[in-house]
Amino acid sequence: MTQQKTIPGYTYGTGEAARSPVTLDELARLKESVLLGPADEAALHQAGTVLADQVEDVLDVWYGFVLAHPFLVAYFSTPDGQLIDDYQRRVRARFGQWILDTCNRPYDQAWLDYAEEIGLRHTAAKKNATDDAPSVPLINLRYLIAFIVPITVTIRPFLARKGHGPDEVEAMYQAWFKAVTLQAALWSRPYIAGDAW
Amino acid sequence: MTQQKTIPGYTYGTGEAARSPVTLDELARLKESVLLGPADEAALHQAGTVLADQVEDVLDVWYGFVLAHPFLVAYFSTPDGQLIDDYQRRVRARFGQWILDTCNRPYDQAWLDYAEEIGLRHTAAKKNATDDAPSVPLINLRYLIAFIVPITVTIRPFLARKGHGPDEVEAMYQAWFKAVTLQAALWSRPYIAGDAW
Ligand code: HEM
Ligand code: HEM
Repeated sequence: MTQQKTIPGYTYGTGEAARSPVTLDELARLKESVLLGPADEAALHQAGTVLADQVEDVLDVWYGFVLAHPFLVAYFSTPDGQLIDDYQRRVRARFGQWILDTCNRPYDQAWLDYAEEIGLRHTAAKKNATDDAPSVPLINLRYLIAFIVPITVTIRPFLARKGHGPDEVEAMYQAWFKAVTLQAALWSRPYIAGDAW
Repeated sequence: MTQQKTIPGYTYGTGEAARSPVTLDELARLKESVLLGPADEAALHQAGTVLADQVEDVLDVWYGFVLAHPFLVAYFSTPDGQLIDDYQRRVRARFGQWILDTCNRPYDQAWLDYAEEIGLRHTAAKKNATDDAPSVPLINLRYLIAFIVPITVTIRPFLARKGHGPDEVEAMYQAWFKAVTLQAALWSRPYIAGDAW
């Protein structure tokens, strides 16, 4: 299973998603840089089966973290600080699908293209457009990078919940860490002008 | 011990280092975002004692990783691909000091200022200037983010080498991960124009 149901605004593999200017060679180098190899890909697939029926619980933890911090809730809110519930719910559904995509999808051109799309949706170029949300114009890059930590460390208990041994859990955890960092690096691209990305 | 010896180009706490435009409030929010709290600070101090006599060994691993990848060696090389040995050695000494600073320094204004300085030294604004090196003009941001993984995962065996129990090693490891990610987020600042950082 790669997709749960029709998800509003989810354009993976369609002509509506951005085309990534990143080459598959550049992706290969980034994968080397985050030490992501075939063993990690296998561990990610395993994580996909482990997480499949826990997606909502993972999202509860992540949204709980965001909602506990006003400076983070701001990104799902109007400029004067009203949480936009509909926006938050629609994004949540796509976020859940992303968990599965990170585990199950091959990291090919379509995946690279949707990584560009997700990056853009965090920047002023495309934030809010998908959901026609009256929210603040962009997510600051520093938090995109910082979130590597909570998105990584909170996944561990979920990986351990299906009876796998400590070595298998560790392998899934490290693969997840690499996959999240890889994507944060890709998503930073549309924040950068010129050749500094 | 916070500093080993006089290190060429190391300007921590001096008027020669940049002033960070990041406020201490913004730093506090970033620390919350990477879940870095007092227990992590204690674990970092412990890591400082554990790593103190292993700094050269850690650097051997990291430099070994860079030197094994031509697309990474490029950043320590001339534009036509000659490794600049003197540059590499001078940076290495400061990199070693950074390991200790990450563990031992309070994350105060002087630390924030030197984080800005290190960020700048990865960008076109200041790369090469400190060592008068005839190297390529900047380090691409994507690798700065990607390196969170190797800089994090390679530290673990060194943390485990001084007889601490698995829980203590894990606590030091997680604190290190948070501290590295925090700094990658701070170092991304000079890459970003406008208010998107
Ligand atoms: C590693 C860090 C992050 C990950 C893995 C992540 C993941 C995602 C995913 C998967 C989506 C949906 C993409 C789609 O439309 O298909 C998304 C959108 C969004 N994220 Fe993030 N995110 C991260 C950082 C952040 C941060 C720090 C914030 C701020 C609190 C944030 C706020 C949002 C918002 C507001 C949207 C909706 C954007 C839009 O208008 O389309 N994200 N994120
Ligand atoms: C998490 C990622 C990284 C960390 C923790 C890190 C750490 C450091 C430190 C501590 C310094 C010396 C700062 C000083 O002058 O006091 C430095 C400089 C340098 N780093 Fe990085 N670095 C990272 C990513 C990278 C990457 C991906 C490259 C490319 C291979 C790189 C290449 C260099 C170079 C060439 C310098 C010298 C810059 C100059 O001309 O002053 N770094 N780095």
